[in-house]
Amino acid sequence: MPLSVRNQIPGTVKEVKLGAVMAEIIVDVGGGNQFVSAITKDAAEDLSLKAGDQVTVLVKSTSVMIQK
Amino acid sequence: MPLSVRNQIPGTVKEVKLGAVMAEIIVDVGGGNQFVSAITKDAAEDLSLKAGDQVTVLVKSTSVMIQK
Amino acid sequence: MPLSVRNQIPGTVKEVKLGAVMAEIIVDVGGGNQFVSAITKDAAEDLSLKAGDQVTVLVKSTSVMIQK
Amino acid sequence: MPLSVRNQIPGTVKEVKLGAVMAEIIVDVGGGNQFVSAITKDAAEDLSLKAGDQVTVLVKSTSVMIQK
Amino acid sequence: MPLSVRNQIPGTVKEVKLGAVMAEIIVDVGGGNQFVSAITKDAAEDLSLKAGDQVTVLVKSTSVMIQK
Amino acid sequence: MPLSVRNQIPGTVKEVKLGAVMAEIIVDVGGGNQFVSAITKDAAEDLSLKAGDQVTVLVKSTSVMIQK
Repeated sequence: MPLSVRNQIPGTVKEVKLGAVMAEIIVDVGGGNQFVSAITKDAAEDLSLKAGDQVTVLVKSTSVMIQK
Repeated sequence: MPLSVRNQIPGTVKEVKLGAVMAEIIVDVGGGNQFVSAITKDAAEDLSLKAGDQVTVLVKSTSVMIQK
Repeated sequence: MPLSVRNQIPGTVKEVKLGAVMAEIIVDVGGGNQFVSAITKDAAEDLSLKAGDQVTVLVKSTSVMIQK
Repeated sequence: MPLSVRNQIPGTVKEVKLGAVMAEIIVDVGGGNQFVSAITKDAAEDLSLKAGDQVTVLVKSTSVMIQK
Repeated sequence: MPLSVRNQIPGTVKEVKLGAVMAEIIVDVGGGNQFVSAITKDAAEDLSLKAGDQVTVLVKSTSVMIQK
Repeated sequence: MPLSVRNQIPGTVKEVKLGAVMAEIIVDVGGGNQFVSAITKDAAEDLSLKAGDQVTVLVKSTSVMIQK
């Protein structure tokens, strides 16, 4: 089902770090770029996220800033 | 000066759409991917954003979601 | 494909207001509650959002605050 | 004092998980729905959040996404 | 009723700009500093925001970045 | 390089709390006000944030709410 989220970038999970409440997911999106995502540990576990997973990184456009 | 923002992707402004209060900035980040940013019109005008500008797209890690 | 987003509430679109850059979507989620979403006009048009549509409202847990 | 925040849903705290820096609060909002909130541990402690508390869940409209 | 929001700064509304969907509120918080807030036009109208109003600016800690 | 971020407040780091994944940074911005920022532990370590550091607190205008 399509999402209103404008930014959807495919990638591969490189690393998953679990804390008590939060988790940090590092995703290789190709071209030498990677994305860092901070989600709840529960979300990471529900998706069974692990290195090597094919995922899509999602970012709402109101969360995107510009530096010139 | 370095930023705490984990996600910093270089790109080229492709289009600037100005509304009354908000502006939408579309940035080509290479590899066939683009980013959409919704910022205030004032911010777009202060940076004089226009097609062709070299910019960096910034996203805080707590704003990044994962779809698997 | 499952999402890391913890809050997913089904509802029915009640109203769509389009501005130059942004759009406001009002979703009836039942029980007398409604949700207001501010997304880009482009997103609203890409999803062809209109009153009566069955949708799911999504909110990342890091965006949820508590008042006691 | 009224808030600009458009989405305000009453509920009952179901669970509080404390990490070193962050806390996860699960709120039952009725109708079989629950909300997950990630706030700082300091905020959870300042509000003395615990299961059974009557609270209001708050979400800014710019943080609300739509899936169709 | 207290909020989980960690950052609460009192100020005086300096300017209100209304668009079709969004509004920009500029708040003088003293010491030569001002805050810009982008909220929905509906929220601005519901609060009857106008220059001179005494308000509190609210920012969730997960939305605060650091530059060093 | 200038940023689209509208809210940039100079201050001094007062305290850094490190968790497993996240970090909480408390910044004194003068006038008796302080800011709390929740960023990843990696970001805090990359910036070598410690009490006494001169920093700038950054907040995107779409993350700013108003209470009246």
